[in-house]
Amino acid sequence: MKDLAEKIIQQDRRALSRAITLVESSREDHRKQALELSGYLRKTGRQALRIGLSGTPGVGKSTFIESFGTFLTSQKLSVAVLAVDPSSVRSGGSILGDKTRMDRLSRDPLAFIRPSPSRSHLGGVARRTREAVAICEAAGFDVVLIETVGVGQSETIVSEISDVFALLLAPAGGDELQGVKRGIMEIADLVLVNKADGQLKPSAIRTCADFSGALRLLRKRPQDPEGYPKVLTVSAITEIGLDVTWEAMQTLSEWRRSGGHFDRQRASQARFWFDEDVKHGLLESLSRAGVVALMARIGQEVENGEILPEVAALEVLNKLKSLE
Amino acid sequence: MKDLAEKIIQQDRRALSRAITLVESSREDHRKQALELSGYLRKTGRQALRIGLSGTPGVGKSTFIESFGTFLTSQKLSVAVLAVDPSSVRSGGSILGDKTRMDRLSRDPLAFIRPSPSRSHLGGVARRTREAVAICEAAGFDVVLIETVGVGQSETIVSEISDVFALLLAPAGGDELQGVKRGIMEIADLVLVNKADGQLKPSAIRTCADFSGALRLLRKRPQDPEGYPKVLTVSAITEIGLDVTWEAMQTLSEWRRSGGHFDRQRASQARFWFDEDVKHGLLESLSRAGVVALMARIGQEVENGEILPEVAALEVLNKLKSLE
Repeated sequence: MKDLAEKIIQQDRRALSRAITLVESSREDHRKQALELSGYLRKTGRQALRIGLSGTPGVGKSTFIESFGTFLTSQKLSVAVLAVDPSSVRSGGSILGDKTRMDRLSRDPLAFIRPSPSRSHLGGVARRTREAVAICEAAGFDVVLIETVGVGQSETIVSEISDVFALLLAPAGGDELQGVKRGIMEIADLVLVNKADGQLKPSAIRTCADFSGALRLLRKRPQDPEGYPKVLTVSAITEIGLDVTWEAMQTLSEWRRSGGHFDRQRASQARFWFDEDVKHGLLESLSRAGVVALMARIGQEVENGEILPEVAALEVLNKLKSLE
Repeated sequence: MKDLAEKIIQQDRRALSRAITLVESSREDHRKQALELSGYLRKTGRQALRIGLSGTPGVGKSTFIESFGTFLTSQKLSVAVLAVDPSSVRSGGSILGDKTRMDRLSRDPLAFIRPSPSRSHLGGVARRTREAVAICEAAGFDVVLIETVGVGQSETIVSEISDVFALLLAPAGGDELQGVKRGIMEIADLVLVNKADGQLKPSAIRTCADFSGALRLLRKRPQDPEGYPKVLTVSAITEIGLDVTWEAMQTLSEWRRSGGHFDRQRASQARFWFDEDVKHGLLESLSRAGVVALMARIGQEVENGEILPEVAALEVLNKLKSLE
C-alpha cells in the first residue's frame, strides 16, 4: 500500500485507477487495504477545489464538463472527474461509463475521468466517492469535479463532498421551470443556465432572471458574499460563460477561505461522514438478505393497515436481537 | 387498558390526557401499555383531518390557532391541538405549555389543547406525537391540528404526521422574505400570510403575490389540483380568511381522497414511521451515555483532522460490538 501511495502521489494514472477500484470494493480485505492507503495519502496535505455538479439528463452535463474541464486545463489546472450515479444502482448503467461522451477531455493529459461504480446502493457509492476524491487530491489535482444526476438524495450527498455546488439547468419557459426539485435550491451555490446560444439564448436569459428573482426570496447564507447563490448563463457548446463560472467559483471559495468557512465546512463534512459511517455500520444488519425480506413483508402489512407501525417495529427489533 | 380505551372512545377528557401522557413516557412498562392501548383504539376506524401548522415565532401562530380553532368549533367541528416542539428539547420550554395563549379555545367544549411534552429529543417527541394524534382520532375529533416551530427537521417530521401541511408567515418586504427556510416550500400545501389587517394589509397582499410567483417556479405535485400549493392572506386577529383557508384545506383533502392519494399518503406515512422506528431502535445504542461521550470525543478528532472519518467510524463500531 505504501508503494501504491507513492505512485499516486507521483500522479501515476494506473495506480490512481487501481486505488479507486480498491476503495470501491466491498470486500473486507480490500476495505482494510483502502483504509491503510488513505492513511498514507492524507499525509500529503494536498487540497483540490471540490466542485459538485448536478443536472437532470438533457441539460448538457457531459458537454459542460467537457468544455469546462478543457477550459480549466487550458489554464494549466489539472482536473479529475468523478461521479455519484444513483441510476447505476438500479439499472446497472453508468453516467460516466462511456468516456466517449467526453472525448476531448478524456485524451487531455491534465485530466482524469473515472467512470462511476455500479452495483451498490447510493449511500455506499457516495461514501466511496468521498474516499476517491481524497485520493485524487493526494495525486495533486487542482480541481475535482463530482458529477451527479438530480435524483433522490444524490445531490445532498454530493454537496457533503463538495466545497462548491453547482446546478446545471436548461433554459425553460413558464411551466417547464416547475421541473426543478425544490430541495436543490437549499444547497446550490451556483445555478448555471446552459444552452445560452442560438435560438435558446433569450429563453436562457429569461430563465436566469426568473431564478435570480426566486433565489432572492430565500435566505442568504451568512458565510457567503452578496449575490450568492448566483445564477449565470453559460453555453457549453460555444464555450461562453466558462470563465465567468470559474471566476464565480473562485470568488466564493476565496471568500469562504478567508472567513474560515471553507475549513469549517470540510471539518463538518468529515464529521458528517463519520456519523454516517457509524450509523451505516449499525444499520447494516437491515441489509442482510433475510432481514430485507422481513422488512418488506412486515412493511407491506403496515401499509395495508394490518399492524401499527410502532408494534411492527418492535417485532422486527426483537427478531433482529434473536438472530444475533 | 381496555377500560381506558372505552373512556377515550366516549371522549372522556381526563382519560385522553392520561393516555397521551402514557404514550409520551419512555418507561418500558408504560411503553407496553401504550402499545396495548393503541391496539384497542385503532379498531374504531375513526379518522380526523390532520393539519400540520408551522411558523416561526412572531407570525401569530397562537392567535391563528385560537381563531381558526374557534372558527372550526363554530362549524360544530371538534378540534384537538397538539404540538411538536423542538425548542422544548433544548430549553425545557414549551410552545403550548401556556394554555393562556389560547384562552378562548382552551375553554371551548369542542376543543382539546395538549401542551407539548418536553425533556426528550425531537425524533422521540414526534414519534409519540404521532401516537397521540391516533388517540385523538379514536376519541372522535374531526380535526387534529399539529403545531410546530420551524426549526431544524421539525417541519419534515410534522409533515409525515399530517394530511395537509400549512405554513404561517408574517407579511414582509424585500429582504425579510429571505428568512423563509428553503426546504419548507417542498412540503407546504398552503402558505398563509397572516396579519392581513390594518397597516400591514398591503404588505401582506404583496407577500402573497411574491410567494405565489415563487411557488409557480416549482414543480406541481401530481396528486394535487391546479393552484396548489396555494398562497392565501389571513388575519387571525380580525378573523378574516379563516373560511377560505378551511375551504382550501377541504378542497385539497377531498381531491386527494377521491384520487386515492389521501389513503396512499397515510399508508406511506405508516411505512415511514415503521422504518424510522426500526432504525431508531438499532441506533439507540448511540444514545447510551458512554457512547455519546465516545462519539463526541472521536467526532472532535475527526473535525480536527486527526483521524479519517472512515477509520474513526470503524473504531467506534468495533468498540460498540465489544460492549454488547
